[in-house]
Amino acid sequence: MADAITPRSEDYARWYVDVIRNAKLADYSPVRGSMIIRPNGYALWENMQRTLDGMFKDTGHENAYFPLFIPQSFLEREAEHVEGFAKECAVVTHSRLEVDEETGHLRPAPDSRLEENLVVRPTSETIIWDAYSKWIQSWRDLPIKINQWANVVRWEMRTRLFLRTMEFLWQEGHTAHATEAEAWEETRLILDLYADFVEEYMALPVIRGIKTPSERFAGAVETLCIEALMQDGKALQAGTSHFLGQNFSKAFGCQFQNRDNELEYAWSTSWGVSTRLVGALVMGHSDDRGLVLPPKLAPTQVVIVPIYRNDADREQVLESAGRMQADLRKRGVRIKLDDREGFRPGWKFTQHEVEGIPLRIAIGPRDVAAGTVELTRRDTSEKETVSATGLSDTIEQKLDEIQKGLFDKAAQFRESMTTRVDSYDEFKEALTDKGGFVHAHWDGTDETEARIKDETKATIRCIPIDPAEEDAESGVDMVTGAPSARRVVFARAY
Amino acid sequence: MADAITPRSEDYARWYVDVIRNAKLADYSPVRGSMIIRPNGYALWENMQRTLDGMFKDTGHENAYFPLFIPQSFLEREAEHVEGFAKECAVVTHSRLEVDEETGHLRPAPDSRLEENLVVRPTSETIIWDAYSKWIQSWRDLPIKINQWANVVRWEMRTRLFLRTMEFLWQEGHTAHATEAEAWEETRLILDLYADFVEEYMALPVIRGIKTPSERFAGAVETLCIEALMQDGKALQAGTSHFLGQNFSKAFGCQFQNRDNELEYAWSTSWGVSTRLVGALVMGHSDDRGLVLPPKLAPTQVVIVPIYRNDADREQVLESAGRMQADLRKRGVRIKLDDREGFRPGWKFTQHEVEGIPLRIAIGPRDVAAGTVELTRRDTSEKETVSATGLSDTIEQKLDEIQKGLFDKAAQFRESMTTRVDSYDEFKEALTDKGGFVHAHWDGTDETEARIKDETKATIRCIPIDPAEEDAESGVDMVTGAPSARRVVFARAY
Repeated sequence: MADAITPRSEDYARWYVDVIRNAKLADYSPVRGSMIIRPNGYALWENMQRTLDGMFKDTGHENAYFPLFIPQSFLEREAEHVEGFAKECAVVTHSRLEVDEETGHLRPAPDSRLEENLVVRPTSETIIWDAYSKWIQSWRDLPIKINQWANVVRWEMRTRLFLRTMEFLWQEGHTAHATEAEAWEETRLILDLYADFVEEYMALPVIRGIKTPSERFAGAVETLCIEALMQDGKALQAGTSHFLGQNFSKAFGCQFQNRDNELEYAWSTSWGVSTRLVGALVMGHSDDRGLVLPPKLAPTQVVIVPIYRNDADREQVLESAGRMQADLRKRGVRIKLDDREGFRPGWKFTQHEVEGIPLRIAIGPRDVAAGTVELTRRDTSEKETVSATGLSDTIEQKLDEIQKGLFDKAAQFRESMTTRVDSYDEFKEALTDKGGFVHAHWDGTDETEARIKDETKATIRCIPIDPAEEDAESGVDMVTGAPSARRVVFARAY
Repeated sequence: MADAITPRSEDYARWYVDVIRNAKLADYSPVRGSMIIRPNGYALWENMQRTLDGMFKDTGHENAYFPLFIPQSFLEREAEHVEGFAKECAVVTHSRLEVDEETGHLRPAPDSRLEENLVVRPTSETIIWDAYSKWIQSWRDLPIKINQWANVVRWEMRTRLFLRTMEFLWQEGHTAHATEAEAWEETRLILDLYADFVEEYMALPVIRGIKTPSERFAGAVETLCIEALMQDGKALQAGTSHFLGQNFSKAFGCQFQNRDNELEYAWSTSWGVSTRLVGALVMGHSDDRGLVLPPKLAPTQVVIVPIYRNDADREQVLESAGRMQADLRKRGVRIKLDDREGFRPGWKFTQHEVEGIPLRIAIGPRDVAAGTVELTRRDTSEKETVSATGLSDTIEQKLDEIQKGLFDKAAQFRESMTTRVDSYDEFKEALTDKGGFVHAHWDGTDETEARIKDETKATIRCIPIDPAEEDAESGVDMVTGAPSARRVVFARAY
């Protein structure tokens, strides 16, 4: 079943697609730029959703659902927003197809032309703030803290499975507050929530930072972000949390009576993560043999492979394996017994590796006799014979070790791929020689940022919120020599 | 807060909208025919989703996600399917907006005209069978049992919150099988699963039946359905399960090598329920005071209202209430303590009624002293003073009683609204006098069915799968006098 996986060293982009297709996470679709998320990929997204959804609810957010279609005129209301999104959106112009008698094929029925074009949402600030302007009259109606799980469309020309697709799945939070301070607090709370999720569940360390004006969300006053590092040394923006100030409440006339009985525009935030995270997870940990998954998100955490040559052995081994499965399931471990007939154990091993199941239990007649099993870690390939007594404890401990091991490995890798430079030559050398994060001084102007991007393809990923001591010191811009208050983080990025 | 709710007897349609808007389940959106599902409404849908999703997974189904956009040419592949869906679909024709210099407003950029128009999915058979045709080569690849939770768009002209909207949320299952028998088994399994869900969780009895050819899904060989009765005597189709035969596998060239090494077209089913169920739930149980919800789906099952006049009482009462809340939460009861300041208990009671919280606990200083609380059922308004000792058991029992009580009431209502007739005069009289389900003989022709619909607005809801004895007997068509093997179920319907 498994086609060959191109090694990372040979072609990283090919490797990525090979890992995804072999693990059956996703497939291309006949509509250019769209993808099909297959059951193995969707199960990963479901685990992410469930975890994040719980975190949102624990912090007082509720889910809702707003319409897919946005009237074209809504986009026009916020000047920067329209600038950012009108150039890449799917436009619905008709409500009916009819047979064209000349060609015999379907065509949009001319008399079904819409009075106003509709845009398939690229993001929902406008339609949501139109609703909020009706719901919010007084400070008593605030805060509103709504999240929605939805699909969005941005007409991307260069797409890549999970990382950049025309349609993607995401969650978008949209909150309204009575004060600026409260909206800022929310923006930061969500950034930390995202960072905790990516570090604790996805086992990927992130930098928390502030975007430069040129990389801000269209319509935001400030965009906070988390940035992760992939194995090829490129950065990936894993989530954003925007402080929108009063931009959208003003665009949609959303005023409320504050506690002093004065009319004031509501303060707001928006924030989101998407199926892009599945791509980050794949890129973050996988190897040349296929997918590697952190146990906390793996749809199947443990697989048992029974090994036998004859019916007597078979019965004995399956009975043991069945008991182990039942015990572990009771503990809440997501476990599968691969008792398919007609496939050899070695073939199964390979498939489980390709699919990234974190831990494999192999059990044969000798193990049953000796009261042992053989455990194999997907991440390190370490094999170990352990006692079947207390197996559930052993497994839980191993899963914790794997989760921690993946994070530590990614953290070490990031450490090794982080360079601090003082000159533009060093900067270019670091980018060319190894990539990764390059911390350097910047004079704070769009011009310098654009010049560096133009010359090196590196962008400012963020201005770190909690900079290391070495980054917090002042200096001079590596290109212009103008003063700089601190180092910022550059990288080539997805 | 609560606006007046129009009584059912005065204007049923108005009552329905009043109940929804007062309970903050949904709101109209600026795009005609689309709706906003507000947090209270979405929480209901989430509970339905969670329950159904568990039932699907327990029967071996997996979730996946297929693209929103379907190439126009895909619709053309299945003749009946295009007939059914081309007339009511949103057509995407452009991928960019630009400023029209004449008007200063946005317009679709002429040079972004798509080579092939895209249709926003009205249902996903075509795009899914295109994928299946690539995934299925051998009987070993079968069955495929995939479900997706998604939004779909059908350009409806006459819309109604939840019951009929241009965009709606649903799940759509799409399965592929190696044999006709297996596909039939799946079709029936899902019908029963839907019926169990609606009866057990939504507390609404349903009739399981087969649709007549004129009411079949466009592209199906046979459509099975469940039909529920609303309080105004109209029927509502609550879910459908389609046996598609080989229609879509043939349209998309999906052949596989069967066990005899012969090429064969795969057999298939599709099935779905939607946010329409939320509308059914509202219509099924609510009353002139607002929403009534079955405990199994209510986002909040129990609310505690503390009652006090001074600070000393307040402390005491809140302490007691807090303990009860903690105890009940530990049992898995979804409970809320309404300790908002500045609102009188009576005002809170009304709000909780309007929002349909099944059970209310009121507790004041006298209750604390006496070791009691006052329980009030939303469905019957029954008040009862019960001991605070063993309260958790009492509450669980009450919730079960309410769940059962709602089902029984709905079943009795349906019974009282079911009429068996032998003549067309009796038929019209039953429809006019009380509505409901009218069981009558039909000769099996499209013509008679159409004539009856035309003359009475009643349609054949279904041919019951497990008919009552009185319905299983043969007779003659009430209109034409032609022979009929059994009675079928007529009603005016949503």
